[in-house]
Amino acid sequence: MGKGITSRSEDYSQWYNDLVIKADLAEYSAVRGCMVIKPYGYAIWERMQAILDKEFKETGHSNAYFPLFIPKSFFSKEASHVEGFATECAVVTHYRLKNDGNGNIVVDEEAKLEEELIVRPTSETIIWNTYRGWIESYRDLPILVNQWANVVRWEMRTRLFLRTAEFLWQEGHTAHATEQEAIEEAEKMQGVYADFAEKVMGVPVVRGRKTENERFAGAVDTYTIEALMQDGKALQAGTSHFLGQNFAKAFDVKFTSKEGKQEYVWATSWGVSTRLMGALVMAHSDDQGLVIPPKLAPIQVVIVPIYRTEEEKAAVDGFVDSLRAELKAKGISVKYDDRDTQRPGFKFAEWELKGVPLRVTVGARDLQNGTVELARRDIQSKETVSQEGLAVRIENLLDVIQENIYQKALDYRDAHITEVNSYDEFKEVLEGKGGFISCHWDGTVETEKRVKEETKATIRCIPLDAKEEAGVCIFTGKPSTKRVLFAKAY
Amino acid sequence: MGKGITSRSEDYSQWYNDLVIKADLAEYSAVRGCMVIKPYGYAIWERMQAILDKEFKETGHSNAYFPLFIPKSFFSKEASHVEGFATECAVVTHYRLKNDGNGNIVVDEEAKLEEELIVRPTSETIIWNTYRGWIESYRDLPILVNQWANVVRWEMRTRLFLRTAEFLWQEGHTAHATEQEAIEEAEKMQGVYADFAEKVMGVPVVRGRKTENERFAGAVDTYTIEALMQDGKALQAGTSHFLGQNFAKAFDVKFTSKEGKQEYVWATSWGVSTRLMGALVMAHSDDQGLVIPPKLAPIQVVIVPIYRTEEEKAAVDGFVDSLRAELKAKGISVKYDDRDTQRPGFKFAEWELKGVPLRVTVGARDLQNGTVELARRDIQSKETVSQEGLAVRIENLLDVIQENIYQKALDYRDAHITEVNSYDEFKEVLEGKGGFISCHWDGTVETEKRVKEETKATIRCIPLDAKEEAGVCIFTGKPSTKRVLFAKAY
Repeated sequence: MGKGITSRSEDYSQWYNDLVIKADLAEYSAVRGCMVIKPYGYAIWERMQAILDKEFKETGHSNAYFPLFIPKSFFSKEASHVEGFATECAVVTHYRLKNDGNGNIVVDEEAKLEEELIVRPTSETIIWNTYRGWIESYRDLPILVNQWANVVRWEMRTRLFLRTAEFLWQEGHTAHATEQEAIEEAEKMQGVYADFAEKVMGVPVVRGRKTENERFAGAVDTYTIEALMQDGKALQAGTSHFLGQNFAKAFDVKFTSKEGKQEYVWATSWGVSTRLMGALVMAHSDDQGLVIPPKLAPIQVVIVPIYRTEEEKAAVDGFVDSLRAELKAKGISVKYDDRDTQRPGFKFAEWELKGVPLRVTVGARDLQNGTVELARRDIQSKETVSQEGLAVRIENLLDVIQENIYQKALDYRDAHITEVNSYDEFKEVLEGKGGFISCHWDGTVETEKRVKEETKATIRCIPLDAKEEAGVCIFTGKPSTKRVLFAKAY
Repeated sequence: MGKGITSRSEDYSQWYNDLVIKADLAEYSAVRGCMVIKPYGYAIWERMQAILDKEFKETGHSNAYFPLFIPKSFFSKEASHVEGFATECAVVTHYRLKNDGNGNIVVDEEAKLEEELIVRPTSETIIWNTYRGWIESYRDLPILVNQWANVVRWEMRTRLFLRTAEFLWQEGHTAHATEQEAIEEAEKMQGVYADFAEKVMGVPVVRGRKTENERFAGAVDTYTIEALMQDGKALQAGTSHFLGQNFAKAFDVKFTSKEGKQEYVWATSWGVSTRLMGALVMAHSDDQGLVIPPKLAPIQVVIVPIYRTEEEKAAVDGFVDSLRAELKAKGISVKYDDRDTQRPGFKFAEWELKGVPLRVTVGARDLQNGTVELARRDIQSKETVSQEGLAVRIENLLDVIQENIYQKALDYRDAHITEVNSYDEFKEVLEGKGGFISCHWDGTVETEKRVKEETKATIRCIPLDAKEEAGVCIFTGKPSTKRVLFAKAY
């Protein structure tokens, strides 16, 4: 086929890079670690945004926009927050360039900022500084705000979508009168993310909480959804943080309660990013190219005509026109690929690479027989079907494909959660089939760090549905009451 | 009423600031010149985005995303471009902070970038550097791409929405095989902007071309839409640039033509920004608050109940429930303001301030009489109408309001285009009623600059529909063949 994509078995990591680039999702830019999201990739991200944004609004949130820049001093106000972000941030120090007289454009040293500005790596600090002015009494609460924005974290090793210096995301920041309400908000948004991952992206996730060591810098509790990629490595797909009163205290945000007392406000924050694009690719795609669930596919159905003469083409066109109209009326996005510069086989390969869920091929003989050929991308099947009731059949088939993509990922994931009871077993599974390893752990940061040093595996989460169960830590033999999930992760 | 808004006649500029802040559209942040767009303001911007984005897609464009940062050297590649933007840009010089050992967070001098990065003030350079890799032959053209993004221009004097250091915008960047096609694209997008301004924002605009002096830095020709605010000052509401081959030459972007020749690619760029929010406020609003055209109003209809007892409230609720359902089915956004903490008069003032186009007031007596009270924000009228056919009446009334807001602005604008034939007249009108001044100009940059120095008026545009007409320049007396529009401007 000559698509130039490395196979997964040969080099999974290279397969991913090849696919992202060949399928026109994204590419590296001239700026170290920053990507260009190409139109086809961005169209998928736009669908993710639209569906998530609707969910946020249905759960009572509004969008707003806060500044790109954060004064350096803001970072120091929450101790663990600055530790988490200071070592990888873009710093603005000047506000002007000038011509040095020799034709060179240089930084104008006379235009040095009094206080450096940090390009936001996340916006808790600037937002809580703003909320101070918005909140006086319990009547001003809750504040349920989200923003869609770009953020910058100066990562040293980058990979398209998975880890880039600049990425796109949404960050929700809510303010509440009570601890309980804030915790419920954080849990609710974890649920919104989990539903989105499973029902829209077709990616099954484990819902859990992070250990102290893996928590967001500044959070009291971090809720996470963890997905599994086809190479057995985990990927954190979204997090929702209960921030306690940490940021309210750092930025002095108090409110007058119903009882007339001055109290600090309770906070959450939650986000998903263009990282989801990486998860989408790695969860479903294959050696032939992308596999995109219909709910996210920019093109859900591609129609390819087969013809030898202008008359045959005209006849096919007539059929396609009415099919397209029917599909569009059902809200299905269709592309008619009638380029006369390419052969059908080339087109088949291209749309397979691009992950279009369903291909309809129709030729002169089909018109005589009242048939078309339907090809499913997910199972690479082909069948000849009647033209009668075709639009309804396609509509139903898209649902079947959506469900099948999820089921396949779920079967893989379920086959890759392994319970182990010893460190030897742990290492054997980790180096063997990989996936999530369910085992007992003594609850200490030290043990977690030592296991990570020795094996590169981290605790992905303490699953929300973990049962109480007496056991001993696989590493220290100390008593434990719950199993956690370890894995190597992106 | 105690809204705390300065009147327009007292101080137009202060009225604008008061209104933007009191109506919860935006506020200044802790970062100099950067604003926070509050949920109510952002909801209006989201509606603008949604409608424009649909237009862009219907005219064949796709969205993509390019990096926030631009290497300093890229700026120098297009000579007039660097001149236009170098003196007001945010410069990233370092990529890490550190603790200095005394508990202070400082810039880590060891993490100095080899080449400084500029936070994009506009993206022609990084995009054309990217397009070089996308374009080989005429088959790769046209490229019709847009991005929604934040940009930064380090303005010294800022005003909410009108001129801020960071602002949100969209920037279209297209690449074409022929000069003619690129010019047509630039003209087409000017048309899209003009239609949006007039039909959606209710703001009449003059379509024209900029003089050499007012052109975008790097453009061959700049198409503009110019609006008039209630204080007689003009506001540039959107621009579309024909860039010739300037950026293709600067970034060496060539293509193989159908004839097999290597040629430079032709370019356009076009953008509108959150500045439109400022135009919206200044074009229609009054001393009582915002006036928002129905097509952009986050809340199109607010319903306020009048009641004394719980039973009366319950009866009103029943009526409102069915009215809301009917209105929602028509796609009309409705808010039922049944807060029991505020009196009706307070609510009336609040929704007047927020510019909700239509208010429905309904009380126990209305239920007996089968009536409601309708209050229009645009003409501040009230009338009692029958409940029969109310949803349809409201739907129609929203169209009437949309049209009336436009017509009012058009009448004002048309009354403020004044033809003058001498410099004395020019100055008299400028210092009197203001508005657009239509007059002859000798076509030189020098004259334009001298008029600006003496009067602060600039040439807003050479209208597309300007007639050929023999005349003499009001300033130099030299011959001229077309009238141009001067005005003081935002």
